[in-house]
Amino acid sequence: MIFRALLFVAVSIAMLAQTGSVAYSKEGIMILPKDYREWTFLSAGLNMVYGENGGSAANPRFENVFVNPAAYRQFVKSGKWPDKTTLILEIRASDSRVSINKDGRVQTNVVAIEAHVKDAAKGGWAFYGFDASGQNGKSFPKSADCYSCHEKNGSVDTTFVQFYPTLREVAKAKGTYRDSE
Amino acid sequence: MIFRALLFVAVSIAMLAQTGSVAYSKEGIMILPKDYREWTFLSAGLNMVYGENGGSAANPRFENVFVNPAAYRQFVKSGKWPDKTTLILEIRASDSRVSINKDGRVQTNVVAIEAHVKDAAKGGWAFYGFDASGQNGKSFPKSADCYSCHEKNGSVDTTFVQFYPTLREVAKAKGTYRDSE
Repeated sequence: MIFRALLFVAVSIAMLAQTGSVAYSKEGIMILPKDYREWTFLSAGLNMVYGENGGSAANPRFENVFVNPAAYRQFVKSGKWPDKTTLILEIRASDSRVSINKDGRVQTNVVAIEAHVKDAAKGGWAFYGFDASGQNGKSFPKSADCYSCHEKNGSVDTTFVQFYPTLREVAKAKGTYRDSE
Repeated sequence: MIFRALLFVAVSIAMLAQTGSVAYSKEGIMILPKDYREWTFLSAGLNMVYGENGGSAANPRFENVFVNPAAYRQFVKSGKWPDKTTLILEIRASDSRVSINKDGRVQTNVVAIEAHVKDAAKGGWAFYGFDASGQNGKSFPKSADCYSCHEKNGSVDTTFVQFYPTLREVAKAKGTYRDSE
């Protein structure tokens, strides 16, 4: 009986760890998952510019993208994002001549955090913007540019899998990849 | 009895997943962990140059660093790397005008993979170099520059924690951080 109870606890913990269920406050503010830095890393870009007149910044920023591990494993199997998929975009400042590094860029402090969440209970994908401390996860209004741009250019289900080198190959093999341009 | 057996299996799987034990062939070739892309991401740099005359490359490379999750959690608790810590350096080529990205760099194919492994059974830390497909993990000879440079400049236990923004703060708080320059 003790083993049965222990097994139940072990399986419950394992399931909790796997679901990565997204949480919101009563006011609809998204709660940033505390352990997102232990989620699966998808890729990092430096100084990515989407507008025609972007140009290089003097202090370019890194963008790290993480996804909850359960969604990652589902994507690897099917090329599709399951419900409750949570992508975290962590934007960090950069620096150059740090320690022995003589050129190029290394990552420094967090500047902002955004989330892209697939949640059927909220009507599908939604974007949330946090401050640098990971607080105040306010949803972007549906009229925000991020929705139309992801809709038009995201290669898989409004997400930019074209920038995630490992998942890009998976999606192509599974037939879920759409060439955006 | 069946539950006892199931529990044993569950715990064994959990322990295997946590230890991240490093494996070698009979000839001492390190076997690249198949799931290192699901390990904990530490940071990414672009075009990092260590020599005085490095200069920028025309096609700069990203360096992603991953560590086995059990070692990460130990480090967060203590500021120290446990035995069997395995750091994976994944070097990727980069590209610019991909999809909607008009400037800056995104990550593309793997160019090479290196590992830095703390293994008391092998006399301490050792470096291994793999080809782009993750094969042939040959150890670098102890006379290689990487050993003396990490020894001299690594801020924690011969590792470049100064480049890992989350662990840098942990090590400073735990008193294990050494300013290298």
